Amino acid sequence: MYSINQLFSFVDAEIKNSYKKREPQQLYLPIDYSMSVGGKRIRPILCLMACNLFTDDIEQAIKPAVGLETFHNFTLLHDDIMDKADVRRNQPTVHKKWNENTAILSGDAMLIAAYNYFLDLKPQILASVLPIFNQTALEVCEGQQYDMDFENQLFVEESAYLEMIREKTAVLLAAALKIGAIIGGANENDSRLIYQFGINMGLAFQLQDDYLDTFGDEATFGKRIGGDILENKKTFLLINALKKAPNSIKPFLEKKIEDSKKIKMVTEIYRDLEIDKLTQNKIFDYYKKAQTSLSEINIDEDKKLELTNFLNQLKSRIA
Amino acid sequence: MYSINQLFSFVDAEIKNSYKKREPQQLYLPIDYSMSVGGKRIRPILCLMACNLFTDDIEQAIKPAVGLETFHNFTLLHDDIMDKADVRRNQPTVHKKWNENTAILSGDAMLIAAYNYFLDLKPQILASVLPIFNQTALEVCEGQQYDMDFENQLFVEESAYLEMIREKTAVLLAAALKIGAIIGGANENDSRLIYQFGINMGLAFQLQDDYLDTFGDEATFGKRIGGDILENKKTFLLINALKKAPNSIKPFLEKKIEDSKKIKMVTEIYRDLEIDKLTQNKIFDYYKKAQTSLSEINIDEDKKLELTNFLNQLKSRIA
Repeated sequence: MYSINQLFSFVDAEIKNSYKKREPQQLYLPIDYSMSVGGKRIRPILCLMACNLFTDDIEQAIKPAVGLETFHNFTLLHDDIMDKADVRRNQPTVHKKWNENTAILSGDAMLIAAYNYFLDLKPQILASVLPIFNQTALEVCEGQQYDMDFENQLFVEESAYLEMIREKTAVLLAAALKIGAIIGGANENDSRLIYQFGINMGLAFQLQDDYLDTFGDEATFGKRIGGDILENKKTFLLINALKKAPNSIKPFLEKKIEDSKKIKMVTEIYRDLEIDKLTQNKIFDYYKKAQTSLSEINIDEDKKLELTNFLNQLKSRIA
Repeated sequence: MYSINQLFSFVDAEIKNSYKKREPQQLYLPIDYSMSVGGKRIRPILCLMACNLFTDDIEQAIKPAVGLETFHNFTLLHDDIMDKADVRRNQPTVHKKWNENTAILSGDAMLIAAYNYFLDLKPQILASVLPIFNQTALEVCEGQQYDMDFENQLFVEESAYLEMIREKTAVLLAAALKIGAIIGGANENDSRLIYQFGINMGLAFQLQDDYLDTFGDEATFGKRIGGDILENKKTFLLINALKKAPNSIKPFLEKKIEDSKKIKMVTEIYRDLEIDKLTQNKIFDYYKKAQTSLSEINIDEDKKLELTNFLNQLKSRIA
C-alpha cells in the first residue's frame, strides 16, 4: 500500500509544468498557475487510494486522478469569477491576476484538458469511467447553480440544501473514489459501496465546514469565523435555526446586517436552539454511514487502513 | 444517400427540447435557448454526410453530431461574453437575456453536455473518436486566444493568421467530418483525407468571410459591409495590404478611425493593391485543395455528390 505522502508526490510529479511552455501562453499560463497554487490534492489522492485498494499497480490511475484535480481547479477558477473573489489560497485569483476574459477562456481550456487525462485508459475502462466523470461534472455545475439560486430565495428546505452540497461537493469526491476503484479492477458492488462512502464523507465534510464557520477555532479552521452569519448564508445551521426559532427571533436571523456583533448574537441563538448539537449529530451520522460502506467493501480490512485514517483525520477537525 | 434536408431534420429532432424541463432551470434554460436559436447546423450535417459516405446506417452518428453542435454553440455563448456581444442570430445573447454568471455556468454545463452525446458509442469507437474531439476543442480555445492576442499586436504574420483561423474555425469542421467518417467505418487513410478536406474547406470559408466583409453584397452577406475595416481587424486583407502598401499609406491602414468614409477609402486601397484578387486566389487555392482531398477518398464518386454540392454552394458565395 502506498502512503498518502507517496501518492501526493505521484500527483505532483504529473502536474508539474504540464502547461508552462505551451502556446498561446495567455491561455496556458493561467492553467499552470491555477494548478500549481497548491491545495491538498484530496480528489486525486482519494482516486489513487481507491485504486490501491484493489491493485498494487496504480500507474494507470495517476493521469485520471490528475484529470479530476484539473476539473476541480477549473470549477474554482470559474466560481471565483462568479463570486467576484479576489484571493484563493492566499494568491490573487486568475481573473484578478490576468482579467475576466482570460479567466473564462483558460477555465474552458482547463475543463477540456481535464478530459485529456482519461484518454490513455483502455477502451473498455474509458467507456465505464467517462460516463461517471461526465455525469459528476454536470452535477457539480447543477450544485453551483442551486447554491447561487439559494442566495435569492427566502427559504431553503433542508433536503434541498443537502442535495445542493451533495452535488457541489460530495459527488466529485465519490466519483474520484469510484473511478480509482474501477481502474483498479473493483467489481460493481464494491464500486457502488466506495461511491456511497464518498458521498457520505463529502456530506459530512461540507456540514463540518458549515459548523466550523460558526463554532470553529480561527487558528485551526484557517478562515475568519462567522463569515456565513454575516453573509446570511443559508447553511444547514441557519436553515435549522429558522425551523426551531420562536417567531420573535426569526426576522433577526433572516436579516442581513454587516455588524460583527451579529456573529456573537447569532452564535448564542444557535447554542440556545442546540443547533450545534443537531449539526454535530448529523455530521457523525454521515461519518458513520461512510464507515459502514467502507466496512462492507469485500477486501482485507488491513487494506482499508489508509482510507480509515483519512476519514478519521477529517472527522477529528470537529472533536 | 440522405439529403441535407433529411440530415437537418435528424439533427433537429435530437436537439429539440433536450434541456427544457431539466432542473435547475436557471442552468438548463439558457442551454435550451442557445441550442434552439437556430443556425445552419453545418457541423452536425457535415458529420452525418461524412458518415453516410461509408455506411447507409448513420443512426450511431446522430448523437455525436449533436455533440459537435452543442460544443460549437458553447463556444459562441462564451465568445459572446468575451466580445461583449449583445445580439446573436437576431436574438439577445445569453449574458444579455440572463446575466454574465448564468452565461459562464450554463456555458460550462453545455461544454460538459457536449461530451454526453459521445457516451453511447461502442468502446473502441469512443476511444478513437474522443481524442479527436478533445484535441479539436482545445485547439478552438487556442484559436480564440490567438484571435484576442492579435487585437493587441501591431503586426501579425500571415502564417500566424492562417494558423489562428485554422484553429478557430477549420479544425471543428474537419473533426466533424473525420468523426462521422470513423463512426461510418472509414479506414485511416480516408479519415485523414476527409480531415484535410475539412481543413481546406474551413480555411477557404473563413477567408471568404474576410473577403465578403469588405467586398461582399450587404443583402446576401447578411452583415454590414466594412465592419472589419472600421475595427481595424487584422484580417488576411489588412495583413497583406500592410505588406504591399507604400510606406506613406501604412499609418492610415493601421489607424483605427470610426468614420464610414474609412470603409470606402480602405476598400479602394485594397483594390489598388489587388488585395481582392490575391484573396480570391488564396480562397480558390484552398477550395481546390479540398476538392483534391475529396477526390482521393477511396469510394464511389457518386457517393461524394452531396459533399461536392455542399462545397460548391460555399464557393458560390464569392462568384
